[in-house]
Formats: sequence, structure tokens, C-alpha cells
Amino acid sequence: MPLTDLPLDVLRDYRGDVPEPADLDAFWAGSLALARGHDLAVELTEAPGPALPALTVHDVRFSGWAGDRVAAWLLRPAHLPGPLPVVVEFIGYSGGRGLPLDRTTWAAAGFAHLVVDTRGQGTDTPDPDPHVSGGQWARGFMTKGVGDPATYYYRRAYVDCARAVDVAHALPALGVEVDTSRVVVRGASQGGAFTIAAAALSGDRVAAALVDVPFLCHVRRGAQVAGDGPYLEVVDYLRRHSPEQVDRTFTTMSYVDGANLASRARVPALFSAALMDPVCPPSTVFAAFNRWGHEDRHVDVWEFSDHAGGLGWQVQRQLRFLDRLGLR
Amino acid sequence: MPLTDLPLDVLRDYRGDVPEPADLDAFWAGSLALARGHDLAVELTEAPGPALPALTVHDVRFSGWAGDRVAAWLLRPAHLPGPLPVVVEFIGYSGGRGLPLDRTTWAAAGFAHLVVDTRGQGTDTPDPDPHVSGGQWARGFMTKGVGDPATYYYRRAYVDCARAVDVAHALPALGVEVDTSRVVVRGASQGGAFTIAAAALSGDRVAAALVDVPFLCHVRRGAQVAGDGPYLEVVDYLRRHSPEQVDRTFTTMSYVDGANLASRARVPALFSAALMDPVCPPSTVFAAFNRWGHEDRHVDVWEFSDHAGGLGWQVQRQLRFLDRLGLR
Amino acid sequence: MPLTDLPLDVLRDYRGDVPEPADLDAFWAGSLALARGHDLAVELTEAPGPALPALTVHDVRFSGWAGDRVAAWLLRPAHLPGPLPVVVEFIGYSGGRGLPLDRTTWAAAGFAHLVVDTRGQGTDTPDPDPHVSGGQWARGFMTKGVGDPATYYYRRAYVDCARAVDVAHALPALGVEVDTSRVVVRGASQGGAFTIAAAALSGDRVAAALVDVPFLCHVRRGAQVAGDGPYLEVVDYLRRHSPEQVDRTFTTMSYVDGANLASRARVPALFSAALMDPVCPPSTVFAAFNRWGHEDRHVDVWEFSDHAGGLGWQVQRQLRFLDRLGLR
Amino acid sequence: MPLTDLPLDVLRDYRGDVPEPADLDAFWAGSLALARGHDLAVELTEAPGPALPALTVHDVRFSGWAGDRVAAWLLRPAHLPGPLPVVVEFIGYSGGRGLPLDRTTWAAAGFAHLVVDTRGQGTDTPDPDPHVSGGQWARGFMTKGVGDPATYYYRRAYVDCARAVDVAHALPALGVEVDTSRVVVRGASQGGAFTIAAAALSGDRVAAALVDVPFLCHVRRGAQVAGDGPYLEVVDYLRRHSPEQVDRTFTTMSYVDGANLASRARVPALFSAALMDPVCPPSTVFAAFNRWGHEDRHVDVWEFSDHAGGLGWQVQRQLRFLDRLGLR
Amino acid sequence: MPLTDLPLDVLRDYRGDVPEPADLDAFWAGSLALARGHDLAVELTEAPGPALPALTVHDVRFSGWAGDRVAAWLLRPAHLPGPLPVVVEFIGYSGGRGLPLDRTTWAAAGFAHLVVDTRGQGTDTPDPDPHVSGGQWARGFMTKGVGDPATYYYRRAYVDCARAVDVAHALPALGVEVDTSRVVVRGASQGGAFTIAAAALSGDRVAAALVDVPFLCHVRRGAQVAGDGPYLEVVDYLRRHSPEQVDRTFTTMSYVDGANLASRARVPALFSAALMDPVCPPSTVFAAFNRWGHEDRHVDVWEFSDHAGGLGWQVQRQLRFLDRLGLR
Amino acid sequence: MPLTDLPLDVLRDYRGDVPEPADLDAFWAGSLALARGHDLAVELTEAPGPALPALTVHDVRFSGWAGDRVAAWLLRPAHLPGPLPVVVEFIGYSGGRGLPLDRTTWAAAGFAHLVVDTRGQGTDTPDPDPHVSGGQWARGFMTKGVGDPATYYYRRAYVDCARAVDVAHALPALGVEVDTSRVVVRGASQGGAFTIAAAALSGDRVAAALVDVPFLCHVRRGAQVAGDGPYLEVVDYLRRHSPEQVDRTFTTMSYVDGANLASRARVPALFSAALMDPVCPPSTVFAAFNRWGHEDRHVDVWEFSDHAGGLGWQVQRQLRFLDRLGLR
Repeated sequence: MPLTDLPLDVLRDYRGDVPEPADLDAFWAGSLALARGHDLAVELTEAPGPALPALTVHDVRFSGWAGDRVAAWLLRPAHLPGPLPVVVEFIGYSGGRGLPLDRTTWAAAGFAHLVVDTRGQGTDTPDPDPHVSGGQWARGFMTKGVGDPATYYYRRAYVDCARAVDVAHALPALGVEVDTSRVVVRGASQGGAFTIAAAALSGDRVAAALVDVPFLCHVRRGAQVAGDGPYLEVVDYLRRHSPEQVDRTFTTMSYVDGANLASRARVPALFSAALMDPVCPPSTVFAAFNRWGHEDRHVDVWEFSDHAGGLGWQVQRQLRFLDRLGLR
Repeated sequence: MPLTDLPLDVLRDYRGDVPEPADLDAFWAGSLALARGHDLAVELTEAPGPALPALTVHDVRFSGWAGDRVAAWLLRPAHLPGPLPVVVEFIGYSGGRGLPLDRTTWAAAGFAHLVVDTRGQGTDTPDPDPHVSGGQWARGFMTKGVGDPATYYYRRAYVDCARAVDVAHALPALGVEVDTSRVVVRGASQGGAFTIAAAALSGDRVAAALVDVPFLCHVRRGAQVAGDGPYLEVVDYLRRHSPEQVDRTFTTMSYVDGANLASRARVPALFSAALMDPVCPPSTVFAAFNRWGHEDRHVDVWEFSDHAGGLGWQVQRQLRFLDRLGLR
Repeated sequence: MPLTDLPLDVLRDYRGDVPEPADLDAFWAGSLALARGHDLAVELTEAPGPALPALTVHDVRFSGWAGDRVAAWLLRPAHLPGPLPVVVEFIGYSGGRGLPLDRTTWAAAGFAHLVVDTRGQGTDTPDPDPHVSGGQWARGFMTKGVGDPATYYYRRAYVDCARAVDVAHALPALGVEVDTSRVVVRGASQGGAFTIAAAALSGDRVAAALVDVPFLCHVRRGAQVAGDGPYLEVVDYLRRHSPEQVDRTFTTMSYVDGANLASRARVPALFSAALMDPVCPPSTVFAAFNRWGHEDRHVDVWEFSDHAGGLGWQVQRQLRFLDRLGLR
Repeated sequence: MPLTDLPLDVLRDYRGDVPEPADLDAFWAGSLALARGHDLAVELTEAPGPALPALTVHDVRFSGWAGDRVAAWLLRPAHLPGPLPVVVEFIGYSGGRGLPLDRTTWAAAGFAHLVVDTRGQGTDTPDPDPHVSGGQWARGFMTKGVGDPATYYYRRAYVDCARAVDVAHALPALGVEVDTSRVVVRGASQGGAFTIAAAALSGDRVAAALVDVPFLCHVRRGAQVAGDGPYLEVVDYLRRHSPEQVDRTFTTMSYVDGANLASRARVPALFSAALMDPVCPPSTVFAAFNRWGHEDRHVDVWEFSDHAGGLGWQVQRQLRFLDRLGLR
Repeated sequence: MPLTDLPLDVLRDYRGDVPEPADLDAFWAGSLALARGHDLAVELTEAPGPALPALTVHDVRFSGWAGDRVAAWLLRPAHLPGPLPVVVEFIGYSGGRGLPLDRTTWAAAGFAHLVVDTRGQGTDTPDPDPHVSGGQWARGFMTKGVGDPATYYYRRAYVDCARAVDVAHALPALGVEVDTSRVVVRGASQGGAFTIAAAALSGDRVAAALVDVPFLCHVRRGAQVAGDGPYLEVVDYLRRHSPEQVDRTFTTMSYVDGANLASRARVPALFSAALMDPVCPPSTVFAAFNRWGHEDRHVDVWEFSDHAGGLGWQVQRQLRFLDRLGLR
Repeated sequence: MPLTDLPLDVLRDYRGDVPEPADLDAFWAGSLALARGHDLAVELTEAPGPALPALTVHDVRFSGWAGDRVAAWLLRPAHLPGPLPVVVEFIGYSGGRGLPLDRTTWAAAGFAHLVVDTRGQGTDTPDPDPHVSGGQWARGFMTKGVGDPATYYYRRAYVDCARAVDVAHALPALGVEVDTSRVVVRGASQGGAFTIAAAALSGDRVAAALVDVPFLCHVRRGAQVAGDGPYLEVVDYLRRHSPEQVDRTFTTMSYVDGANLASRARVPALFSAALMDPVCPPSTVFAAFNRWGHEDRHVDVWEFSDHAGGLGWQVQRQLRFLDRLGLR
């Protein structure tokens, strides 16, 4: 299993050539404004299933893009005094919030942990799509509505993520004792892209970002280099479906490219990258990392790892990183 | 590349065990009635692109499920006198109507050839989906809305196919000289499932069906046996996404199962099956073929072929089959 | 991804033909007696790494086979009153106890959770092997010392597992408030084989067993049917290394075959099997399940799952199973 | 699916290092002279099989290398007035002229379309080989007779292609109204190599060339870079069969290398290349394209396509290219 | 790596259904008579390359089918007194006689060892083919001339093998002291098919046959079951090239089917079969073995081996088998 | 199958960056001294199995690391007068000395041929391992004891190789007439690493080295580039098992790195490398070759070969190389 990308010494300074739309900030400001025109309407109910007595677990619902209802789990240590710091976590491709018993680590570590579903991909959050005139797709979510930034799937998904940060800030009003000055966003792969977006779009509502092997960064290179994973959907789309739409496709994707959004983030960040990652090749990760908009940024490089990255070892480092920042 | 399924002598009588919903006929009658509440509204315009002087080619648009506009190509020999027989063709999974110059064979063979796009899968026919409460999906189209027959993607797609047959019957009124007593439906793989559905739902508006290596027949067995292709989406969905939803999923799928619909067809049919087909294993094809509702049914078996079936040789046999029936 | 084994209706009664050594019980009684000749010598120290404040985590060391020191983690809810029920968990092939933060679920569910390392496979438990005259091996652990039951790797590993149950019973004396009448063993894959062995070798020191897609059951059939995973080590060994040693190899393995040991177990059990499992084909699982020595046995069958089985859904069922038995 | 070769900006000027035999022109002049010593002896008979009434289809036979009889199809629009322009098409590796109903596009587009079989590879054109002293082969055609340029398979095949152009020029004398000033050659993959050869060897008997993802260009690099397809036959031959024959093998192949022959072509050309093509890596295509001997040369680059190239979109571009040149 | 074929207890009696041409014996008698119309013309010259001082090595040439010159190596122990027993060995698919230093085992074991090249496949034996009217081929040798038994490649190759036995009998006259009453034939895979043929066609000129995992037995089943190797050429030919030629193809192949020829053999034989052989599935081996025409027949079954069979262990058994028969 | 590594012109001078431990020479001097503290205790017995009358074959046992008994075969031409030159051969990964009849070539070529088993990997040489405190391992031998150079598996294995050279020198005293001034070491892959080690550690007890596609050279690059073979064990170990142990692992491995040991060799050497070798990428071979400590060094480059290298052609070249040096 050879290295999937450039050697480490080249990666250290790699930024790549990622075109940035002139109206990028306006696009997202407008998108957020549209979404915030809907009441967030956070609902908390007791989670179903066998109880986990060391934790308190709620099923959360809130309004994301277009007021669509988005699901999440909120897990907390049952017996630790608040206000607790908050981790808002986003999920990898084709997953979803899953079951609470699969998500016990961060609550055990002392956080209020909001695990946010991904629209269309999970079990509980539909992706209503009444206006599909902007494009068609091959399969999966990568090219859904890709004909126009306004109709692109990831516009809706990113806005959901920003609204999930808003949910963290709304918790005290709902009687959940959290410290809104210590809201951390985290996620791996697609969840890493969501984390970058949430940090970029949330201003000072977020205190730090933990970004593991993020997807959707320097997308064009990702599609040229990745040997596995959802970047191949882009290749499939451009190969068989719309070979004359290369530029139009990447223009749309530039609005959600993590390399462009990373420069808008203003909080400390801990990234991870893996040099044998065939899904999110490390050059695409460094293209975002090297643009990150806060000087307290670090990247853990796993030289012989694949897309699984640093596994639990990376989580250990994240806890230490947050401890250093006083965020736990 | 070994045989992918049962030996031929067992296949000859294979029907399998395919549960049939009690309200199957009512479901489809109701679905068609809903769709026919929308005006068909056929529009013909000159096709774009470099001309094909031996043919006349139109871009066709009509109203399918929920009045959604569906695209098609209509190709005809430019210099043969009408009324021409009609072939309505449906497309395999993840494809679409493509370009007219890729679809010249049947017009060259003397037919008016209507090549029908598949909603969501092609370039020109969106699949608007405002009501997704019935279920979520893993990837692709196989599990889109599969939580309920009413919201399942293939309900919408099958109704589009029946409406495409209606388009063939509407052509004379639009000045296209075709013989509506000679409307043939055809398709391979997913297009084969659409062909079965179009024949089953169209009564005597169709004169014959050409069904190649059809998909979506005896779906549960397909998901148990197929080694490649979109049946694997069902496996993926049930494995990682909704492992407790096995029965509910196949209940929904039983409404679109070609084995159930084949028994509603009342026209001669020529099937093909391939014994080394890993995508649509031959037992699933025979489960539909052996239920076909007209005695003039035949199946060409390609003993050493994969999902490509009999290639051009099968088309030769189809032309001879139609010649025998006086349908060319 | 077709079914990897027999159809479900055949599996329901499948026992297979698994030869049982005449001296099986004597072999294990003698092996345990040898090991119990060494003081268990349980040591608990605070676990290293970032704290998980909702839990109490200890690094455990105890004497297994030949007095070799075996590592484990003990995780408990920090704030729930004891005596707590105990789950002793064994690990899949090539893994090890890993990091505590990867193992928080069962403590969150209210158990004292002992996660037992596997000798040689993890980071912290060596497999000293001074007497290797009984055989050589190809690679991995499957054929290490396979020339003779006395020198076979899994003799040592199974005895470690029985001693881990002894550790659970030794906890109260060390000041850990657990209820030794509620000791549950669990594990998946190789961990499932260890679970069967621990239940069979521990008599009434164990109250229930949770066995997921177990490895090392009906080993000969496993080597004939498995398409992936460590059964292939046996094939590799017999193909290239020792093709004339087929019978001798399986004679040794019959001493550790879960199908033989299952009949010695005398506690309720919940198994799981997956019909598309290429690593532990379901017939091998049923060969053990159908021999299980307690009438309160159940098997959850995941029809479209691979070796990952029922994922978190299976854990939910296990919690409900234990709740029904009053073991939580 | 990563890029299979160099980045596009490097490819634009890539020529590679392709040794050119000193006697290259003499070799081909002599080979053609030998072949032209045999009467072309074109025979046209009505094609068998179900009629395609919009077209006129003939089975063609003519004398190629050594007077061996080569098969072809001639398809024409049945109702368009002549003289028609001619497209002479060559076929990809392991194919053959196939069935007329698979080849209707170019006749529909208004051309007399000559589809030329490949000796040995199809159904109807043998490759008699009485003089094999020059070399042996591993499998397939790539190394058949490769020990000496005089006995190499592709010498015979290329001469057949030049003779097929001669057939186009012989058609008027046989009563087929074609315009011999508008003879276009085309082909993809192996057919692309044949197209280059036909253009290079036919002087002004050809008016333009359409070369898609051509095979047999910069062969040594092809064998070093290709991950799939018939270049691997060369690797297999040199690895297992004749590892000491590397230089001799590539010396023979230099006589048929499209990079060498492209410089002999004197007509406008439209190439296509695909950056993810593992069969004919794009650097080998550019090595030929950048040597093409006419200034009106263009290459369509499909950035995310594999060996299928631009599919029907490329055909659209070819029609527009010919329209611009007045060749339709 | 699961079993590739039927379980062993079924294989023991497996014969399969292999049609036998009525004129099979006449076909081969005629073919041999034709070949024997050419002088055998054995030539021995000193082998090139670095000397192997313990052996005497000659390059052998003789006339096979149509008088074509066939190459072989003759290796003998340099210092053992004659007359020596003879082993005539045939080679697996796509190989050839190779280099003498790769073939030292049987001479070291005390035999005069004739290693016979395979026409077309090696380096030194061409397959001149002036009369190819009987058929075309896809790739490789399996379908070369398969349109008619008279032109089929394996007719020529089998006759070469029978002539190689004649060479063994001609050696004394050339001054090589061998015992022509102890001529043994052997080979694996394609070489196993050649061994069956040589035994069947040579009457009492052969004393025993050693047949390892033979190819070309029950060919139709081979093409249905094999997952790897040259049977796939047949599948490829019938799938893409000539799907309507299934019966014709297998009729030709029935003339060379080892199951039919085995019944003509009249000498003791030791076979080997491997139950995980994907290239020559064991049922095809047993179809020939169970038809073998001499009662002193044995088969070594390697239960967990692939196409490599029993490796050197099988050679040990062959030496013991020959020792028992007094043939060494 | 593309090139697996750098182009040849770069390889010619490639040395890579291989850290060398300061105490490397002391480490090996100490290790050898420890081993030589045990009596070599060579035992020769007649080899079992069917006789090979042209050869004399003995089963050899001697004391390697820690006095552990190591097996070997000694094959000699039975009838050639001594003293014979000696070839000491080491074996590739996961193999072992195998059977004598598989190893007849070098005795036939006139050498006394000592085929040395590999501890743990073969059938007859155990790897007793009582002191495993220095580390654990994932699977296979690559990471066994890798936590410390003192406990690393290859320390033991390399010392065995040096002791095997001592065996060659001990043969005359045991009545085997060999010329100890003509002791050659050879091996491929892992055997190539052993050959480098044996040459480096044996001073003038060795006269030449034949090193084919050696493993364990520039190990870190090997783990970054290899696409197949045992370097992947290192990747697996560092990815899943010990991702924070990268530097410690390669520090241990630097003690056995062939690039470091090659510079200690003081005898002529013939290497081979293959440019399409995915197991031992050619840059790792050149890193050792370019450091080789004797000016009479040569490397045969097989441009289109994989890990099988030059096959018998390379053996021919080795014989000629030894002939030139007067070592045969």
C-alpha cells in the first residue's frame, strides 16, 4: 500500500490552486440568512432504546436549511456538574447519527456531545428537494444538484451544520447547562468538511475545531488523486454522465470547498492527515490546513495510516489539545 | 467466471417465492389515475446537435408522475413512408436518454423510436421529491423512499414508463405518422424492469415486449445472489443502514417486483437471460418470465454471457420476433 | 455480495460433523489446573492518558497461562453505586485491548467492563513461547504450534480467558464493588470463540454469554468455506507449507473448536450470525449454536450483513437480553 | 481512480523519446508494394440478417496483405443522394466488424461507412501465417511474430488498413456513388493506431483522420505505464517469456509505432485523449499527436475519462470538425 | 478461498456428461497417420548455456504435426549407467520448454528426461498455420481454429505429444541408452491434458502416466466452473465473439477432451487433483480420472490446495509410484 | 502493470536516506560473539524420501542463535570429484528449505549446495522466543520483537545465516570435500537480505554474493512504496497497531537494513533488480547495491519483470559471473 500522494516535505507547504468565487462570502451570508429566517425550534425528547445509566441522552430536532427538521443526539455525563463544554460532531459520508450507544466516548470525557445527523444520509433526517432544476446526478450525494451552487446538496448540508452550532448555543435556554463559550466542532472525512464549514460560518460561536482527514477540500485534486471513496462519484459523473461539464461542476463545488472555507475560520484547530489515505489524499487536507485562518493550527500526520487516520490515538491528542486551550 | 446462479435445467421451471401484495392492482390503478389527472402535454422540438440526415430526430417532453416533465428522444427514418411501428425504449440503471447519435439502430430498422429518459438518472429529467417522509436511503435510487410504497422512487419511475406508452399513442395527433396498433416496449436491465411494468400497466396499448436481462425481478433473491450491480445497494442499505428493516424493505419492493407485474402482462414477449450474469442473476429473470401473462413468450438463454447478454445477436432475434408477429 | 453459505432454513438445524477428541474434558481440566497453579496476582493501577471523568478506568494485569502476565482494562461508571454487574470482553483477531476511550459503551450502560488483551496480538501482553517443538507456522496465530494440542497457541489463549473470568471474581477482594453472580462474557469473531471457551471452562462463575459471529467453530468447514479472514491462514498453511498434515492439523484444532466447547457451556446465551459473512460463515456459527449446552439460547440472524453483524443494533438486543435475565 | 499519467500541462508538449528506424519509410513502401502486387478484388454482396430499411448494407471482401481476403461492412443511407463522403473505420483490440446493426451511426449521419474487420481478431477475416520463423508469442496479437518486423502481426494488419482506403477509392467503379476526395479514416484504441497508419500510408487518398485514444503509440512507455489492456501482453512477454529480448522487441515495434507514423501523416486530424485512461495512457497519445504531420491538428482532452474517452460527445465533435472541413 | 467445486464424496464418483464424437478414434488415427507420414528426423545437439556438469543436456528437434519442427530438451545424469528409464514431460499453458537449468529434478532422480516444447507457446517451436479457414479466435490458444476439429490448435499440439513419445523410442538408435519399455509420460495442467493424450494415442509405447491437475477435461463444465485460467478464454470467446457458436465450439473441443481420451489409455496412472483449484476444477479432473482405461489408477487429492496441487510432495509420490511399478 | 518505482536513470545513482545506528558494528559483533559461544555442532544424516541417484543429499543440523538448532539440506553431485565449491542459499519469506527434489539445480551445476532453513518459517527450524519483552507484533515475522533491536526476530535470523557460512567451512572436517576458499552466498527476496547479511558478517569466509531482488533494504522506503508482500506487515503494524511507534520501529529495523549492511561487505557481488517489482521496489535494491563495499559489483536490471526477477536467465548469469571469478 504505497503512499497515495505527495511526500511529506512537499505537503508541509502545499496549498494547491483552488479558485475562489468572488461572491463566496455573500453566497454563504445569504444562505445563512435564509435559514435563520426559520425558527430554530429545538426539541429535546428522551432517547429511545435501552438506557445508558451513566449518561443522559436526548433525541434532538431542530430546523436547518429551509426549515427542514434535522435530527441529532445529545449525550451528557449524568452525574457531572455543569456547565459542560460542548462538542458538536458531524458524520462521515453515507453515515448518520446512528445509535447513542455507539457515541459514548465524548460524554464519558466530560462533554455535552451533540451528534448531528446528515440530511438524506441517515435514518431520521430527510432531504426534501422540491427545486431540482439546477442539475441532475449520477449516484450518491456528491453531484446532487451540482449544476448550480444554489441547488447543490452541500449548500443545504453546510447550513444545517451552522445551525447545529446555533443549537449548542440554545441549550441553556432549554435547561441544559452548557458553557457556550466552549463549543468545539469536530468530525472526520465528510464530517471534517462539515467541521470546517461550521467553524467558517459560525464566527465566534465556536471556540475550536477538530478536523480529521477532511473530505471536500481542493475537490478537483481530490477527484484526480483519490483511489477510493466518494470523490470517485465526481469522476463517474464527469466520465459517463456529463463529460462536457467539468468546469461548471468544479465552479459549483468551489463554493463548498474546504480550502476556501478554511481561510474564513478564526479559531484554533487541530487537523489530522494520513499519508496512505486513498479517500481524502493528504494534499487535499494540507490545501485546507495551510489556508486555515487562525495561527494556532496544528496537523497530526499519520505516516502509514489510511483513511482511518490516527484512530483513538488522535482522540487522545484532541483531548490534550482541548485541555491546553482550557476547553474541557 | 463461473455460472452465477442455478443450472439451466432448474431455471427452466424456476418461479421462486415472491410475495404479492393484496392491493397490488389497486396500488397501480390508483397511481396511474393520479398521473393521468395531469395533462400529458407532449411537446416536440427539433433535436440539437449535428444533424443525422438519414433520420428525423425530435426532443420530446411529456408529463409523467405528478406532472413532472419527462424527456425523451424520438428518432425516425427520414425517408420511409408511415405509419411506422413504434418502439418505446427504457434505459438501464444510472444512464439516461443520452445523445441521439448513440440511438440510431431502431430508426434504421424502420421504427419510430422513442428513447425515454429515467427521472433523476439522466441529464434532462429531474426527480422532484417534496415528500420524503416515507424513508431515507443509502446511496443511489434503489432505496430512495423505500420506507413506503407510496413514496418509493420506482413508483414514480414506473408511472413515467406507462405515460411514455401514452406518448406513443399521442403521436398521430401531433402529426407523426405512427401505427398505434404496433407499439412495442423494450429495454435491458433496469430498462427491462421498466418494460415489464409498461406492458403490465398499459393493457392493449402495447403489442409486444422485448425484455433483456431485466432488473427488479424477485428482488429479495436478487439481493441474495447478485455479485455486482445495483442489487448491492439493497444489501448495503440493509447491512449498514437499516438492518432491522429487512421485511419492511422487501414489502415495499414487492409492489414494483417484475415477477409480480409480469403476470399482469397480456402481450407476446421475448426475454433474454445470461447464465453468467452477476448483476441480474438468471433465476430472477426466470421468476418473471415463468409468470408472464401471455402464452406467446420466449426466452433466449446465453449460456456463457454476463450482463451484456446476447449483444447485437439478441437485437437480430428481436427483429425476427417482431417480423413474425407482423409488428415491423 | 451473495450469501456466503447455506440458506437460512438449512442453517437452522445445521450441526455439521465435528470430531470430538476423547480426552477433550481432561485436556482442558489439566490445562486449567496447570494455570491455576500460578497465583492470579491481579494488579490494578490507574490508567494512563487523558481522563474520562464519567468513568473510572484501571489498567489490570493478571497471570494467565504459565503465569504469563496478561493485560486488561477495567472501566466503570464513576458515579453509579455498586455492586455492579460485570462484562468480561474478549477481542477479535489481530486486535488487542486498545485504548480505554474506544471502550466506553458498556461502562456507560452500567457495567464494570473488563476488556481483556489477547496474548501476542496486542501491545501489552507477550506470548512467551519457549517450547515450540510441537510445530511450526506459516504466518499469524492460527497455526502457531499447531503440530500438537499441547503446544497450540489457542490452548494458551483460551486459558487466559478462563483466568480473566477468575479476575472478575477477584475484584471484590480488591475493593471493586461488583456482583460476582452477574458476570457476563462477550466477544465477537475471535472474541466470540474466546467467549464460548470462557463459558465452557468457567462453570457457574459465568451467568450468561453474548457470542457474536464467532470464529474457530467447525474449523474444517470454516477453512473450506471462508473467503476472507484468518481461516485462510489454515488454507495457506495446508496448501504451501504442510499439505500432508491435513488430518493432524484438524485434530489439534478440534481441541479448541467452539462447536465442541459450546456443548460444555451451561448458561444462557445470545448468539448472532450474518448470512453474508465471509470470515465466519454462518454454518460454522450454527454448528456451535446448535450444540450450546443450555436451553435458553437464541441467535439473531442478520440476513444481509457481513462479518460486522448487527452492529449497535445487536448491542441493543444484548442489553435487552441481559435485562430480561436480571443481569443488569 | 487517479490520473494514470502525467499532468495535462506537461502532456501538452510531451513527445517522449521514440527511436525511429532508419529504413522506416522503405519498410512501409516495400510492404505496400508487395500488397499492391495482389489485385484488390473488391466484392460486394448483400449483407445477411434482418434488413435495416433506412440503410443499404453490403458485405465487402477485398485483398489485403499477401492477398489475404479481408472482410468489411459498407453501410449507406438508403435514400440520400450521392456522391457521399466516406468514413473508413478501424476496430479496437479483440473486436471485429461485428454486426451491421451495431454500426448505424455514421450512415445515419450521411456517410458511406466502411467498417473494416481486423485479421485474426474477428469472425470473418483469418490471419494465415505460414512464415512464423521470426518469433513466437505469449498470447494475443501484440507479440505475434515480434521477433522481426518482417513477420510481425501488425505489419500485416496495417497494410490491410491502407488497402481498405484503396477500397474506398474503388467504390465508384463498383457503382457506389462516393466522393473519393472526402475519404475520412477513424478509429479508437487499436483502431486509432490503424487510423494513424492508414493516414500515414495513404498520402492524399485520405482527407482527414479522427483518432481516439490510440493504441500502439510510444509503445515502450505504454508498456511501462499502462495498468490495463493489451500493453500488458508486452509486459507479460518480456517478464516471463523473453526477458532478454527487450531491445529486440521494441526495435520491431518501432516500425509500427504510431508516434513514428504520425509524422508521416499529411492531413488534418482530430485526436482525443483521456487523462484517466489506463489502457492507452495519455502521454502515449500526445507523443503521437505532437508529431502529427499536419498543422490543422487538434486534441480533445477528457480530464476525468477512462479509455472510453468522450463517448458520443466526441462523435459530435468529430461531425462538427468534418463539417468545418467541408468533408460532410 | 472456498472450495471451488463439488465436495469430495461427490467427486469420488463424478463422471459428468461428456459427449463423445462417433468418429473420435478415426479422427485421431487419421491425424497420427498424417503426422507419421513425415520422417521423425530427430536431431540432438549440445545444449547452449553454462554447463551443468552432473548432467548431460541436449537440444532435441523432431518433426511433429505436418512435419513442423518441435523443440525439446533431453537431460540425463552424466554418470549413471544406462539403459535409463525415460520421462517425457509436457508443459503448462503459455509456458514452453524454458531453460535446462530449470528442469534438473527428473534427471537427478535417474531418468532420461525429455522436456517437450509446446507449439506457439514457447520460444523455439513455431505453430505455422497456413489453413485457418475453419475458425477465428479471441485471444490465446483455446479457440484458435476452433470452428472445426480439423483446424483446431490442439489437434496439432496433441499429435506433437504422441510424436514426442516416438522420439523416446528413437533414442537408442541415436546412441542414447534408454529403456524403451520404461517410458513414462507426465505433465500438469495443459501438460496433464497432453499426458492423457500421449498415453491414449501411444498404445503400449508408454508404460505409465503421471497426470497432475489436468486441463482440457470435461471442457464445458470447466468453462462453467473455472474462476481463473485459460478456460476463461472459452467464456470470453462465447460471450463477446461468437455467442451463437456454443454447440459448435464444444463439438470441436469434444475431440480433444481428456475425459474422452482417458478411456483410451491402457497404462497405470497416478493423477492429482486439488479441491481449491480455480483453474482446473476438480470435477473436471475426476471426469477424466473415473474414465481412465486401466484399473491401476490412483488420484492424490489435495484438499486445501489450489492449481499448484501437491508441489514437491506430489513428485515424491510419483517417484514412489514408479518405484512400485519397477519403472525407475 | 506500471513501473512500481523510480525510472532507471534515477535508480542508477539512488542511495536514499538510510539512518545508520552508531553502534551497528558493535551490535553485530556482539551478536555473533554470543552465538559463537555455542558449539556449531554440525550433524549430517542421510536425507529421507525417494533417492535422487545423481546426487548425494544430507539433512544438516547446526546451532544458530542462542544455540537453537537450525536445519539445512546439503546436496552434492554424486559423481563429481571434490573439492567442490559451495553455494550457501537462503530462502524467501514464509518459505523454508522445502524438499531436496525442489533444489537440484546448483548441485547439478557442480556445487555443494547448502539450503538453509529460516527459523519459524519452515517445517524443521523452530524459533524459540522466551524473552519477548521488547515488543509485540501484528502478524508474520516483520514486527516480531520489533520494539528493541535486541529482541527483534531478524537479529536471530541473520545470525543463523552467518553460522550457516561457518557450517560450509566446517564441512571438510566432517569428510565432505569442499573448497572453503570458494564459498558463495546467494538468495532472493528475504533470502537476498540474508545473503547481504551473511556477506557482511562473514568477512573473508565468503568469496562472492549473489543477491536477487533483496528484501529488507531501505526498509522505510520499502514500506512507503511496496504494493504487495511483507513490507505491508510494517504498514499494517504502524497503521492499526502502533501508529505512534513509527520512529522506534524504524530505529530497530535500521540494525538489519540491507543498505547499512551492504557497505560492510567486502566481496564481489551480482545483484538483480526488477523495475515492476511491487514487493521489493527497485529503489530499495539500488539503495543497497550502491552502498555495496566491493568495487566488483554488478546489477542485472529486468525492466519489465516483477518480483520473480530474471528467473532462470538470472541463474545463467550467476553461473557465468562465478565462472569469471574462478568460483566454479
